[in-house]
Amino acid sequence: MRELEERIRRDGIAEDGDVLKVDSFLNHQMDVELFQAMGREWARRFAGEGVNKILTIEASGIGIACVAALEFQVPVVFAKKSRTRNIAGDVYAAEVPSYTHGGVSTAVVSRRFLGPDDRLLLIDDFLASGAALEGLLALARQAGAAVAGAGIAVEKAFQPGGERIRAQGVRVESLARIKSMSPGRIEFC
Amino acid sequence: MRELEERIRRDGIAEDGDVLKVDSFLNHQMDVELFQAMGREWARRFAGEGVNKILTIEASGIGIACVAALEFQVPVVFAKKSRTRNIAGDVYAAEVPSYTHGGVSTAVVSRRFLGPDDRLLLIDDFLASGAALEGLLALARQAGAAVAGAGIAVEKAFQPGGERIRAQGVRVESLARIKSMSPGRIEFC
Repeated sequence: MRELEERIRRDGIAEDGDVLKVDSFLNHQMDVELFQAMGREWARRFAGEGVNKILTIEASGIGIACVAALEFQVPVVFAKKSRTRNIAGDVYAAEVPSYTHGGVSTAVVSRRFLGPDDRLLLIDDFLASGAALEGLLALARQAGAAVAGAGIAVEKAFQPGGERIRAQGVRVESLARIKSMSPGRIEFC
Repeated sequence: MRELEERIRRDGIAEDGDVLKVDSFLNHQMDVELFQAMGREWARRFAGEGVNKILTIEASGIGIACVAALEFQVPVVFAKKSRTRNIAGDVYAAEVPSYTHGGVSTAVVSRRFLGPDDRLLLIDDFLASGAALEGLLALARQAGAAVAGAGIAVEKAFQPGGERIRAQGVRVESLARIKSMSPGRIEFC
């Protein structure tokens, strides 16, 4: 999606260690009009797929998911990240290793909000290692929900997550795919 | 706001200990069309106030804030909650006691995204003790930003937060104000 790629070129900051800072418009300060354009693009790509709910994970997926959901006219459910491994109550739970913060958190969703009648679009801001998206897929599997696919804002295509998840038969629609990056330089696929 | 009050009556669950569960439409599963109606109501109430940015706090404020921001045509900044007291880097930081989870977290915003030219609308899902909103007010103060007011979805008006913050001269627009509640019974102001 050209609009997102241009925004990343203009306002994204490529740093050492394959870090891409997009916090001025995507995941700390948030340009909701850009999110609306992204939502429209996913709605176009997933038209006719029967998506009835969007599943995302806190925190930075929530804003993108909610604005996109207006285009699909469906509700959003967000998985909560918990640091405790002993999750009480009636929930689905999947472990998600964190590469940014280290350690493992548990992604949790109430059983009341996902089930076999759902056909989900999974939304997240980044796809790199694939850990967060695999957590969402595990939650969907536990619920018996179908997955129409995943809508990702920025995929680091030089990391293995996207390829591994597509190899499982999951449709992944990333709006900007980064082929390679180094400080001061970003190249898209 | 009648639409929100009716939804709380229908789908909200009042439990022991003044707990109001609204997780089927507000803060776990999220009805974004309701959020749009809420955003329009805040846009009506704060029309002409010169709001140029919305400030909220993760996680459950983000979805409401992003959908509301479409009505104001402004960006959103969300404060990140950190468990560490030693915050590194160029940020504003305010301590926020958590009544749900216990303990204290620190609300953090990059200095790049708030400043003296900003005129903020603060958005959150709940106002009860006022701790989260006071954290956002402290961040705005540190940034030298003006505050047009606060847009709250659900205010527990029987708790002291709303009164204390209004007494500081802050305009607080809560769309549903609960006068009293007990298991199975919710009364609005």
